[in-house]
Amino acid sequence: MFVHETSVRVLYADTDKAGVVYYGTYLRFFEKGRTEYFRALGKSYADFEKTGILLTVVEAHARYHAPGRYDDRLVIRSWITRLTRTRIEFACDILNEAGEKLCEGTTLLGCIGIDTMRPTPLPEEMTALIKDKVVAKKEEG
Amino acid sequence: MFVHETSVRVLYADTDKAGVVYYGTYLRFFEKGRTEYFRALGKSYADFEKTGILLTVVEAHARYHAPGRYDDRLVIRSWITRLTRTRIEFACDILNEAGEKLCEGTTLLGCIGIDTMRPTPLPEEMTALIKDKVVAKKEEG
Amino acid sequence: MFVHETSVRVLYADTDKAGVVYYGTYLRFFEKGRTEYFRALGKSYADFEKTGILLTVVEAHARYHAPGRYDDRLVIRSWITRLTRTRIEFACDILNEAGEKLCEGTTLLGCIGIDTMRPTPLPEEMTALIKDKVVAKKEEG
Amino acid sequence: MFVHETSVRVLYADTDKAGVVYYGTYLRFFEKGRTEYFRALGKSYADFEKTGILLTVVEAHARYHAPGRYDDRLVIRSWITRLTRTRIEFACDILNEAGEKLCEGTTLLGCIGIDTMRPTPLPEEMTALIKDKVVAKKEEG
Repeated sequence: MFVHETSVRVLYADTDKAGVVYYGTYLRFFEKGRTEYFRALGKSYADFEKTGILLTVVEAHARYHAPGRYDDRLVIRSWITRLTRTRIEFACDILNEAGEKLCEGTTLLGCIGIDTMRPTPLPEEMTALIKDKVVAKKEEG
Repeated sequence: MFVHETSVRVLYADTDKAGVVYYGTYLRFFEKGRTEYFRALGKSYADFEKTGILLTVVEAHARYHAPGRYDDRLVIRSWITRLTRTRIEFACDILNEAGEKLCEGTTLLGCIGIDTMRPTPLPEEMTALIKDKVVAKKEEG
Repeated sequence: MFVHETSVRVLYADTDKAGVVYYGTYLRFFEKGRTEYFRALGKSYADFEKTGILLTVVEAHARYHAPGRYDDRLVIRSWITRLTRTRIEFACDILNEAGEKLCEGTTLLGCIGIDTMRPTPLPEEMTALIKDKVVAKKEEG
Repeated sequence: MFVHETSVRVLYADTDKAGVVYYGTYLRFFEKGRTEYFRALGKSYADFEKTGILLTVVEAHARYHAPGRYDDRLVIRSWITRLTRTRIEFACDILNEAGEKLCEGTTLLGCIGIDTMRPTPLPEEMTALIKDKVVAKKEEG
């Protein structure tokens, strides 16, 4: 099982007038998690794009457990829960420094050919990198 | 059945380098839909906040069907799908001017007392306004 | 003298933990002002882009006078202060409903050819539309 | 002379449909620079806030030299150019990994008492930390 971990520091820009991280900001943090996941495997998502594909978000889900606060250094844990010929599902947990889970989510990505803008199989190199890293069941929340 | 409709014009700020609306931006559009929903019923969400409550997002879900484009005037359709003593679930469809559904989502809101920051019943005035507007089943996507 | 006016409602997404509009959000509002300025003249900026040009921001400046608040309906006033062969300078005032000026700014735009990504003269049609609308001196703040 | 350096990786969320970093996003990067500047001096801005003050942005200026790209690791260089009893001016350069300057800016911050929301002198501890770090003239762009 492969769970990738990166972190992000909460800016004023990420918060809202309730004094906490805005609910939409977590999708930004999920994106950061996915991007760094690929980089950690040895090939950046940006490099995969150069081969003529895009991963577009087909579905996103987030459950909010506790508020994130300004200047918190949040931990972003990302792992892959599903892999098909054209799709990847990522799960993501966002924790604060005390280890409290603030938010958990999933994003389902579909592979698209840049030329055709139509669904296309994931690049073989990508599939090879991640196929043994799929975690069948999402961790218990 | 009460479905509220408002619109938003897509800015550069809302798009990303794929040339389309960023997946996180739709949560901003959902927020706009919810806010205008309350205003259309006669009392703004901001006014409800002044009575000492907050509606915090407990869960959010989005399914992306087709890309939103720069300068599109998007239609935001919002309705309530569930109502309990402390929670409201909103559904939202985002359509382009041609009537094509780009994104559909739900957000579950929980009522919090500003003083205690603990769950608290929805204000009676809010419940009275919306209780006959709940749509039991989400429209077919 | 031509001053264009549009408005925007402040969302939670636009605010930060100080309870006011985030300083970066005003650049989003400036963008909205510029876009609607062109639309009001009869040809949208998006349509100009289709002729093969981009207007990129070369310089931006903002002075913040008073805080914008959640759910305020802000007025965005935009006008052109300078016009050269390849550049347009916009000025922008953001006011609240009480008419109080919250923020004033300028953005200098440079015309770029999409093919070459190099500076290029503004489209003749654009220059024709705006040349008699330039306000030589910025209004006193 | 004290110039602080931190970095940020450009996300899809930071870009726009022109394929480059959105002009408003740089104000987010400036914010990150200012925050990490204080942390590097030994006391975080968040800790200063706990003493009852806020630094609000009075003025912001940005000049854009070259586009920032997706997945670039940008360098954020921050330094203080002016210090008065109630105000601090920060300058900021944003460079790409090749060392090319993409954007330079300044932000003028004013100290506000949280209780009164009126201008108030900077905390003595803050002034003590930064008074010998002011760079009289901004570097040549």
